[in-house]
Amino acid sequence: MAIASISTITSASPDGWQQAAELGFERARKTLRGITGIKVLEEKARVEDGQIVEYLVTLQVIFLLEESEEG
Amino acid sequence: MAIASISTITSASPDGWQQAAELGFERARKTLRGITGIKVLEEKARVEDGQIVEYLVTLQVIFLLEESEEG
Amino acid sequence: MAIASISTITSASPDGWQQAAELGFERARKTLRGITGIKVLEEKARVEDGQIVEYLVTLQVIFLLEESEEG
Amino acid sequence: MAIASISTITSASPDGWQQAAELGFERARKTLRGITGIKVLEEKARVEDGQIVEYLVTLQVIFLLEESEEG
Amino acid sequence: MAIASISTITSASPDGWQQAAELGFERARKTLRGITGIKVLEEKARVEDGQIVEYLVTLQVIFLLEESEEG
Amino acid sequence: MAIASISTITSASPDGWQQAAELGFERARKTLRGITGIKVLEEKARVEDGQIVEYLVTLQVIFLLEESEEG
Amino acid sequence: MAIASISTITSASPDGWQQAAELGFERARKTLRGITGIKVLEEKARVEDGQIVEYLVTLQVIFLLEESEEG
Amino acid sequence: MAIASISTITSASPDGWQQAAELGFERARKTLRGITGIKVLEEKARVEDGQIVEYLVTLQVIFLLEESEEG
Amino acid sequence: MAIASISTITSASPDGWQQAAELGFERARKTLRGITGIKVLEEKARVEDGQIVEYLVTLQVIFLLEESEEG
Amino acid sequence: MAIASISTITSASPDGWQQAAELGFERARKTLRGITGIKVLEEKARVEDGQIVEYLVTLQVIFLLEESEEG
Amino acid sequence: MAIASISTITSASPDGWQQAAELGFERARKTLRGITGIKVLEEKARVEDGQIVEYLVTLQVIFLLEESEEG
Amino acid sequence: MAIASISTITSASPDGWQQAAELGFERARKTLRGITGIKVLEEKARVEDGQIVEYLVTLQVIFLLEESEEG
Repeated sequence: MAIASISTITSASPDGWQQAAELGFERARKTLRGITGIKVLEEKARVEDGQIVEYLVTLQVIFLLEESEEG
Repeated sequence: MAIASISTITSASPDGWQQAAELGFERARKTLRGITGIKVLEEKARVEDGQIVEYLVTLQVIFLLEESEEG
Repeated sequence: MAIASISTITSASPDGWQQAAELGFERARKTLRGITGIKVLEEKARVEDGQIVEYLVTLQVIFLLEESEEG
Repeated sequence: MAIASISTITSASPDGWQQAAELGFERARKTLRGITGIKVLEEKARVEDGQIVEYLVTLQVIFLLEESEEG
Repeated sequence: MAIASISTITSASPDGWQQAAELGFERARKTLRGITGIKVLEEKARVEDGQIVEYLVTLQVIFLLEESEEG
Repeated sequence: MAIASISTITSASPDGWQQAAELGFERARKTLRGITGIKVLEEKARVEDGQIVEYLVTLQVIFLLEESEEG
Repeated sequence: MAIASISTITSASPDGWQQAAELGFERARKTLRGITGIKVLEEKARVEDGQIVEYLVTLQVIFLLEESEEG
Repeated sequence: MAIASISTITSASPDGWQQAAELGFERARKTLRGITGIKVLEEKARVEDGQIVEYLVTLQVIFLLEESEEG
Repeated sequence: MAIASISTITSASPDGWQQAAELGFERARKTLRGITGIKVLEEKARVEDGQIVEYLVTLQVIFLLEESEEG
Repeated sequence: MAIASISTITSASPDGWQQAAELGFERARKTLRGITGIKVLEEKARVEDGQIVEYLVTLQVIFLLEESEEG
Repeated sequence: MAIASISTITSASPDGWQQAAELGFERARKTLRGITGIKVLEEKARVEDGQIVEYLVTLQVIFLLEESEEG
Repeated sequence: MAIASISTITSASPDGWQQAAELGFERARKTLRGITGIKVLEEKARVEDGQIVEYLVTLQVIFLLEESEEG
């Protein structure tokens, strides 16, 4: 019986939304084992002094609850 | 003062969405104490070789934060 | 000229969402004549002491306004 | 490279929404090969003479486009 | 690289929605370090014996993941 | 078996949205017995001659259908 | 203090959606005093034997609760 | 057992949205047998040189899958 | 490189929603050059003394930013 | 013929959302003549060092286009 | 008279969402003549063994119905 | 007291959505001082003769109202 949980995170990159999502995934897998997918909820950017300083992406991260937790 | 938190999970059953929700609740209460309610967000099914192999339900689980945590 | 009105109700059953909707329809037709349809808006459940005590369904009930009212 | 297409159908059963979805899936796989999933969009019921005569479910059906079509 | 996570809570106050949100924030910061913002998702009230007994607010709480977690 | 009905009202106050909701609740309980909750759907204000003359709130009012009606 | 209530109706006309809304308003004011506005929620049409037989419009009807009711 | 499918089309008319929907229905029934209804999803207009040159309407078209297809 | 801006307006007509949208477009093109399209967001009507006194339509107006502004 | 335009602003107050909306209205009427209403779109708060430093409200501001502009 | 139809597809690429959309368009134009536009509905990614194995994009594809079909 | 305004624009690039958003921001900052952020609302593409000729992105642009305007 597969049970998954969904977390929501926001990550940032100076390079673009694709990169921000990749960084968010990299960060998420450090604490969450069993990730099976991500989903983009929102794409924004923060501007300072007339320059885009970071692209921000809000992601849902889906991960399986581990067997040991289920036992 | 009542404070509740909301988690989102996805669970599955070969028998139907009602059963998938019941299994998701059974799984959730193993790790979350003080559950007061659930809410259905999405109902899907996964198909393999022309057969529905599992019904999937995404649930919000609402649970009270415990006194010891609040103290 | 057909004119219909839409009411919103919430009903409950200990057995499941399908049953809660059937009970809600049974209750609605005691006061509303000329029902032509129902539509599910929301499915929730209430939990007490680690058990689901009732499945809750919010329904739109569509019913025709009667001729005598229209006359 | 996986490419999938999404169709929307509505199916009906006198027995309940779970059954209506199963019948809709049965019907869909007669014309669509490579179905990988379904998703519930809407649950309604049609009423005649004070009785629910059919439960209606609107489903998205996801299916892979076949290799021969892609070639 | 800033990474934030989003939690959802519900809090209550007998005095109003503004106060319920403030109480929810007070509670959230006891367990979550690095909160950068909150967002109101829903405002409700619970009624008993013809009196509003508590105002309920559902909040998203946004908080930074700490350096030690990222290291 | 608990069955509830949902009505939608709009109420107004010159003092603010919190007060408009309280007035709406006061008004609603004069005609509806068994209210169990309210939910805020929309907050607006009406302006005349450069002054806000009333704060407007649209509320869902949930109330139980009485036993005598159910009997 | 102005308090308004909101009802939802569906009306039909063989001539078009504008006409269906006008007929719905005509019907609504036979039973509801103090109407201040309407709002279109949905526009559909019913087809039989390859012809559109009626245009259907779902309307919110906003009406003031009367003083005598408030007194 | 009734099974219906839903297609989405966009049609245009220089005369208005009502006319655009009627033209879209006329076009749809040339290729789709068994249409039972349409639903308006979006109303737009295209402007050239300061004049509205066509009103655009996006429609869902609901049609029954034929017996021969089901057999 | 085409850049467009989007404004939102509300316009009114005693004759119907189609006419209200046409009047809104006429008004908008007096101040906005380079309009390329409009989109209907909401259709309402205002009622006084039991009569619809004006049909109200909320429109998005899309217009190109002019070259001189871009230079 | 009444034509209104809709602007969106975000305003802030250290005291609460009600106050933030009032300040936003005060600011808006300095540049916009003929305001007839406001509508709340979003309520958030910004947190620094474990304290809410400002409540933020996003508002739609509705204002009539002036006669001189229409002439 | 322009009539367009809208199909929904999901496509995938190991490289990113921009590439997944381009591949989906390439695939769509093999079977659909007269495509005039695409629209992104959803961006997800599938993860296996701690790696993103494909970026998934759900697209609406808008295409003109051909003259020969209309004739 | 911080007050921000929100404008909506659409921009285009032959290279992709990331580039279209960057171009839209470049264009926006020529006329709007004090931009603090952007948010993606919609991603589309326009197709001619079987080729994507431009990627289109609809953006909200958030900018502070200047002190001199506030004075």
